[in-house]
Amino acid sequence: MLITLEGLDGSGKTTAWRALRDDHPDAVFTREPTDSWYGEAVARSIDDDDADPLAELFLYMADHADHLSRVIRPALAEGSLVVSDRYSDSRVAYQAATLADASIPDPFAYVRSIHGPISRPPDATLYLDVDPETAAERSGRTNKFERVAHLRRVQEGYERLLAADPDRFVRIDADRPQAAVLDDVTAAVDRLVD
Amino acid sequence: MLITLEGLDGSGKTTAWRALRDDHPDAVFTREPTDSWYGEAVARSIDDDDADPLAELFLYMADHADHLSRVIRPALAEGSLVVSDRYSDSRVAYQAATLADASIPDPFAYVRSIHGPISRPPDATLYLDVDPETAAERSGRTNKFERVAHLRRVQEGYERLLAADPDRFVRIDADRPQAAVLDDVTAAVDRLVD
Repeated sequence: MLITLEGLDGSGKTTAWRALRDDHPDAVFTREPTDSWYGEAVARSIDDDDADPLAELFLYMADHADHLSRVIRPALAEGSLVVSDRYSDSRVAYQAATLADASIPDPFAYVRSIHGPISRPPDATLYLDVDPETAAERSGRTNKFERVAHLRRVQEGYERLLAADPDRFVRIDADRPQAAVLDDVTAAVDRLVD
Repeated sequence: MLITLEGLDGSGKTTAWRALRDDHPDAVFTREPTDSWYGEAVARSIDDDDADPLAELFLYMADHADHLSRVIRPALAEGSLVVSDRYSDSRVAYQAATLADASIPDPFAYVRSIHGPISRPPDATLYLDVDPETAAERSGRTNKFERVAHLRRVQEGYERLLAADPDRFVRIDADRPQAAVLDDVTAAVDRLVD
């Protein structure tokens, strides 16, 4: 079973992933972008302000394809529980927001469509739903106004994904204190795995 | 106007591209994969026998997206003639052949579809049509039997592209001596540019 954790930067997603890792020592815990050289290429692109956003999307896709063939599919074939901190939904929500200004007719549909025939959809996705203002404050970035505007577009992408595939998602209110969020995440995974 | 040169390795494509460059000093001559760091990532993947073929496809796409934004679109916007040694058709023909053994329903359709909304189609494409046996001999690779079998699959991809879009292609018989091929290439470009 493949469970993914999704949400805005600052939603507490990675903290939840670490807590789950302690609870499920036999599961495979992984993340995207990965730490492979494909993931390093993604990081290089993110650091380059002049990088073309479509080129960046395809680097993310290369990293995803490598992740699928090297980690995700083998672990699932062995019957392992796999928990990934970010996965395909991140690309759809984030890259569609980034590509909103590019000359592509429908970035959201495009990014989804390139996953369709080649990816392995998650069996379940925990969506840590946080207000963009809260997320921007938690992540402590500068340019807060721009940051919130961008995160609102990303959030819209996530909401479209939840609307398109409601049975796959577990929505968790991540505006609450961390302990309450972690309790819900742990309980959700226990229900899914049982 | 964007003219692309396509064909199997060993078709004489790059020699033709160099001859055209001498004839058209004001045009922009370019190629894929490019010599950018995205192109270097493609080369790294080609050199790695264990590289996932889908990851490789997406590295090629990242290089293409960067090429479009940095070279192709700006040159066309300035009114330049642009001549590219390999372009989108190479990816469709070659990567579809490489992905034939992967678990994708229809690699040819998939590789075409990911170009659709984001690429800039060529105005004309010179297809240097060479027999795979001849191409394999010219390129001087080892494993000739495997090589010919692979090039036959690539050739089938090219033929599907020509059948789907006959008005865009100029087919040039590249089994003949180089001088005759170059004469046809030069004449074809002169007709297109006039």
